[in-house]
Amino acid sequence: MLKQYVEAGFGQAKNTVNILFKNTLTPVIGILTYFLIGFNLMYPGFVDGEGYEWFGFAGFFLTLPDGGTTVDYVGGGYTYWTDFLFQAMFAATAATIVSGAVAERIKITSYLIFTLIFVGIVYPIIGSWKWGYGFLHDMGFYDFAGSTLVHSVGGWGALAGIIIVGPRIGKYVDGKVIDKPGSSVPLAVIGVFLLWLGWFGFNGGSVLSADPGITSFVLVTTCLAACTGAMGGLITSYFVFKRLDLGMVLNGVLAGLVGITAGADVINPGWALLVGFVAGILVVLSAVTLDKFKLDDMVGAVSVHLTCGVWGTLAVGLFSSNPDHSFLTQLIGVAVCGAAAFISAFVIFFIMKKTTGVRVSAEHEKSGLDSSEHGIRGYTIVYDE
Amino acid sequence: MLKQYVEAGFGQAKNTVNILFKNTLTPVIGILTYFLIGFNLMYPGFVDGEGYEWFGFAGFFLTLPDGGTTVDYVGGGYTYWTDFLFQAMFAATAATIVSGAVAERIKITSYLIFTLIFVGIVYPIIGSWKWGYGFLHDMGFYDFAGSTLVHSVGGWGALAGIIIVGPRIGKYVDGKVIDKPGSSVPLAVIGVFLLWLGWFGFNGGSVLSADPGITSFVLVTTCLAACTGAMGGLITSYFVFKRLDLGMVLNGVLAGLVGITAGADVINPGWALLVGFVAGILVVLSAVTLDKFKLDDMVGAVSVHLTCGVWGTLAVGLFSSNPDHSFLTQLIGVAVCGAAAFISAFVIFFIMKKTTGVRVSAEHEKSGLDSSEHGIRGYTIVYDE
Amino acid sequence: MLKQYVEAGFGQAKNTVNILFKNTLTPVIGILTYFLIGFNLMYPGFVDGEGYEWFGFAGFFLTLPDGGTTVDYVGGGYTYWTDFLFQAMFAATAATIVSGAVAERIKITSYLIFTLIFVGIVYPIIGSWKWGYGFLHDMGFYDFAGSTLVHSVGGWGALAGIIIVGPRIGKYVDGKVIDKPGSSVPLAVIGVFLLWLGWFGFNGGSVLSADPGITSFVLVTTCLAACTGAMGGLITSYFVFKRLDLGMVLNGVLAGLVGITAGADVINPGWALLVGFVAGILVVLSAVTLDKFKLDDMVGAVSVHLTCGVWGTLAVGLFSSNPDHSFLTQLIGVAVCGAAAFISAFVIFFIMKKTTGVRVSAEHEKSGLDSSEHGIRGYTIVYDE
Repeated sequence: MLKQYVEAGFGQAKNTVNILFKNTLTPVIGILTYFLIGFNLMYPGFVDGEGYEWFGFAGFFLTLPDGGTTVDYVGGGYTYWTDFLFQAMFAATAATIVSGAVAERIKITSYLIFTLIFVGIVYPIIGSWKWGYGFLHDMGFYDFAGSTLVHSVGGWGALAGIIIVGPRIGKYVDGKVIDKPGSSVPLAVIGVFLLWLGWFGFNGGSVLSADPGITSFVLVTTCLAACTGAMGGLITSYFVFKRLDLGMVLNGVLAGLVGITAGADVINPGWALLVGFVAGILVVLSAVTLDKFKLDDMVGAVSVHLTCGVWGTLAVGLFSSNPDHSFLTQLIGVAVCGAAAFISAFVIFFIMKKTTGVRVSAEHEKSGLDSSEHGIRGYTIVYDE
Repeated sequence: MLKQYVEAGFGQAKNTVNILFKNTLTPVIGILTYFLIGFNLMYPGFVDGEGYEWFGFAGFFLTLPDGGTTVDYVGGGYTYWTDFLFQAMFAATAATIVSGAVAERIKITSYLIFTLIFVGIVYPIIGSWKWGYGFLHDMGFYDFAGSTLVHSVGGWGALAGIIIVGPRIGKYVDGKVIDKPGSSVPLAVIGVFLLWLGWFGFNGGSVLSADPGITSFVLVTTCLAACTGAMGGLITSYFVFKRLDLGMVLNGVLAGLVGITAGADVINPGWALLVGFVAGILVVLSAVTLDKFKLDDMVGAVSVHLTCGVWGTLAVGLFSSNPDHSFLTQLIGVAVCGAAAFISAFVIFFIMKKTTGVRVSAEHEKSGLDSSEHGIRGYTIVYDE
Repeated sequence: MLKQYVEAGFGQAKNTVNILFKNTLTPVIGILTYFLIGFNLMYPGFVDGEGYEWFGFAGFFLTLPDGGTTVDYVGGGYTYWTDFLFQAMFAATAATIVSGAVAERIKITSYLIFTLIFVGIVYPIIGSWKWGYGFLHDMGFYDFAGSTLVHSVGGWGALAGIIIVGPRIGKYVDGKVIDKPGSSVPLAVIGVFLLWLGWFGFNGGSVLSADPGITSFVLVTTCLAACTGAMGGLITSYFVFKRLDLGMVLNGVLAGLVGITAGADVINPGWALLVGFVAGILVVLSAVTLDKFKLDDMVGAVSVHLTCGVWGTLAVGLFSSNPDHSFLTQLIGVAVCGAAAFISAFVIFFIMKKTTGVRVSAEHEKSGLDSSEHGIRGYTIVYDE
C-alpha cells in the first residue's frame, strides 16, 4: 500500500507498472488470506480466554464464535471487526516488506505465490506466539506494535528472497556498486511521509484502549524517533558517501519508526530520541554491509525492517520503564521469530526456484518488466512541439 | 478531489492541467452550491420530523431553522454542520464522476455549467426521494451510502455526457479501439488508494452513529469487497486482454467499493466477497461493451459508478440480512433514479450542445487542452546535459 | 511536510531533490527543537495557572512539571503529549513557509541554521505572547488557529528571506517576469489538497475540546473559505493574466484557508464566504505587487501566508460574532508580531549573508542544486527504444 510509493519512486521507470501491480495485489492477497485463515491462526482462543488453542477463536471466514455480530474487547472501545481490520493491515504490511527488496527481477507469479503462503500461514503462526498468547507471551517477551512480529519477520523474508533470487543484472560490476536512478524521488518522499502518518495509526492503535494519555505518549515517542532516525541517517550517510543523501534521510525516518515500534509505550521520550538515532545510523551501515556481500535490496527493506526491527526489540530490554522487560528474553524472541521466518521464507523461495522459477529472463529484466508483462508504461510524458 | 488523480494519471500529458483544473473547481462548485441550495433541497423537513416539505429544513445559505448554532442528530454524536459537510462531500463526489468520462475533449465552461446545475439541483432532488425521507424511502428502498443516489446518479450523468460529447478523435479507428497512454500510472494508483481510504470515511460515516460495532462491521465489508473487486478485475481482464492489466485491477477495486456501498451494513462478510467479485467482473465487461458502441469513457467512470452502482443496489435485494429489503423495490429505485438522472443530464448537455457547444475545437483537442486554455504544461522534466 | 509537494511541484526539475531534502529536514528540525526548548518557551506557566513565567511549564526535554506521565487539559479530552505534538506541527508549519519562498537559490546549510533559530526561538516567543497567556492575550487579541502566530510569522520570515537572498537568476529580465515551468503540476495539486485536509486537523483540533458542535462549525467555515478563496483566485487571475490559471486557483484555496484561520470559530458561514473570497483576490494582487518590486517568491508563500494571514486576523475585528473582539486590538497584534518576526528574520539572514553566505554560486544555481549537493536527479524517466 503506502510502501509501494517508496518502491515505485526508487525503482527504474521501466519497472514502475510491475512494482505498482505487485503492490496493489499484495494487500489484496494479505487481507483476503487473513480473512480466510490468518486471523484465526494468529488469535487462537483469544476471546473465550481459555488459553492457546488452535482454531479456538473464530471459525474460518471470520465467523464469530457464538454466532453473534460483535464481540467487544478492552472495555467495549474496540470490536472484533476493528481488530480484524487492524491486524489485517499489519499482515499486509509484513507482506509488502519483501516486495521492495526483490523488485525489478522477481517473477510476478512466484512473488504472489510466496506472498500467499508467507502472509497466510507463516506470519500469523509466528505472530500467535506473542500476540495470540503463545509461548513468547508466557515468557514475558514484549513487542508493542511489531518491531519483531511484523517488521523483522518481513525483513527475514526479504533477506531470504534476495539471497535466492540474486542481484539485478549490472548492480555489482568489477567490485563496484552501481545504483540505478529511481524514476521519481517525489513519489518516494510521498510514500515515506504517508508511512510516517500511517505509523501514528499503527502505533497509536496498538494501545488497544481509549486512554488518551497512553495513546498520545506513544505518538510522541514515535514522532521523536522518526526525527532522530532522519538525523542519524543524514549524518552517517554524509560521512560514508560525502553527500547530502536524501534516500538515507528517508530510510532514517523509516528506521527510527521501526526501531521505536517494539517499545513505543514503555520507552521515555529522551530514550526514544536515542533509539531512533541509533536506528538511523544502523540503517546506513546495514545497507553498506549488504552491498559488500552482493545482497541486492532495491529499497533497503532488509536494513530498515530487519536490522532496525531487531534493534528496536532489543532496545526494549535496554530502555523500558517496565522492570519486567529483560534483554535476554527480548533476544530469545528475536532469535526464535527470526529463525522461523528466515527458514520458512528460504524454503518457500528455494522450492519455487527449483520448480516455477523465481526470476524473469535476462532479456525481460533488461527491457523492463512493464513491457513484457503489463503492456503499458508507467510514465508517458511527451508533447508535440 | 481524489478522483482527479486517477483521471490525471490515466489522461494524456497534454491535458493534465485541464484535468486538474476541472477537478479542483468541481468540489469547490459542489460544496458552494450545496451550501446555497443543495442541502436544503435534499433534506426538506428533516429536523422537525414533520415529513417531506420543500425548504422545510433550513433556509438557503445554511441558516438553522431556529436560529441556533447547532442541531444535534442521532443522540448528539452528529451535528448539523457535520451533516452538511458530509453530504456536501457526497455531492462533490457525484460531480467528479462525470468529469473523468468526458475528459480530454469537453469545453471547460460547458463542463462547469453542467456541474453547477447537476450538483446544485438534479443530485439533491433525486437524493431527497430516499435520504430526505421522500417516496422511495416510504417504499422501503435501501441505499446505505449511495450506490444509487451518488454513484449511479453520477454514472448516468457521465453516460449522457459521453453520448452527446462523442468520442475523442482517434479513439475508434477502422473498428479498433486505440488507447492513449496515460501520463502517470503512479498518480492513478495514488488516486485509487486514496479513494479506498476515503471510502472508509464515506461508508463508515454513513452509519450516522457512534456505535463501534456497526461502523467496524461496515469497514470490514467495504474492505473485503474492494479486495475481491480487484481479483474480479484481474481475472476477467486477463481472459479478455491476455495481460496483467493494472488499470482493470484498479478499476476492480473501485468497482468493489461502489458495489458494496448500497448494503455495506446489511450484507454479511461472506456475501460481501461475492458482491465485490461480481462487481470486478462487471466493470471489465461493461468497459468492453461501451467500446463496442463507441462510447468513449476515458477513465471507465460509467463502468465503475453506473454499472456497479446498479449491481450493488440490486445486491441488497439479493443478499441483505434484513428481510424487509426486496429485490423489486431495489429495482424500482434503480429505474426511477436512473431515468431522472439520465434524462436530466441528457437535456442539460443537449441544450448546451445546441447553444454554447460542448467540445473544444479539433485543433485544440489534438494539441492538448493545456496549451490552449491554461498556458502551462503539466510536467516539465528536462535537464541540461 | 505537505507544503513540500507544492514547492517541489512548482519548482524546476533540476532542484527537486534539494527542495524535498530541505522540506524533509524542516519538520525534523522543527519537532526536535520544539521538544528541546520551543514548547517550554511558548507555554510558560500554562499548567499551574500561575501566569506567565519563563520556563514555568515544563523543564527542557519535555519533562513534566510534577514528574508524572500525563497532564490533562480541558476536561481530560486532551493531554500534555497531544498538545506537544499538535503545537510542534504548528511550529514545523511555520518553518516550511520560509522554505518555498527562497527555494532554488538558497544555500542548504544556511537555510537549516535559519530554521533552527527561527523555529526554536523566534516562533515560540512570539507565540507565547498570545497562546502562552502573554500580553497580547491580556489585551484581548484573538487568533484562533494561527493566521498571525503561525502564518504571518512564517510569512514575515519568508519576506525577509527573499529580500536578503535576492531573486533567482533570470527571473526579472528587461522589466519582464519570467516564470520557470514547474516540474509537476499534479504534485502541486496533491500538496494543496493534502493541506486542505490537514487544515481540517489544524483548525478542528484548535477547538481544544471534544464539543462536536463547535468543531464541526469550524470545519464548515474552514471549508467554505477555501472554496471562495479558489473562486477569488480564479476570477482575479483571469482578469489579470487572461487565462484559467490553475496556480492561482490553488493559491486561492490556501489563501482562503489562511484567511479564515484566525476566526474560524467566531465568523459565521456567510461571512466566512466573504473572508475567503477576499483572501483569494488578495493573494493574486499581492503576488503581482511583489513581482513589481522584484521580490522573487517561488511559491507565493508571502502572498498566501503573510498577506492573507494579516487579512484573516483583521477580519476577526470586522466579522467576529464575539463583541469583545476589536479591530484595533487585532491591528496591534498584527503589527507587534509582524515587527518582531520580520526584524528577527532579517537580522538572522543578514548576519548569515555577511558570514556563511546565503546563496549558492551562480554556476550551481544554473546547473541545478540537485547535481551539486545531492548527486541524484528528482526524475529519471527514460526508456530504451
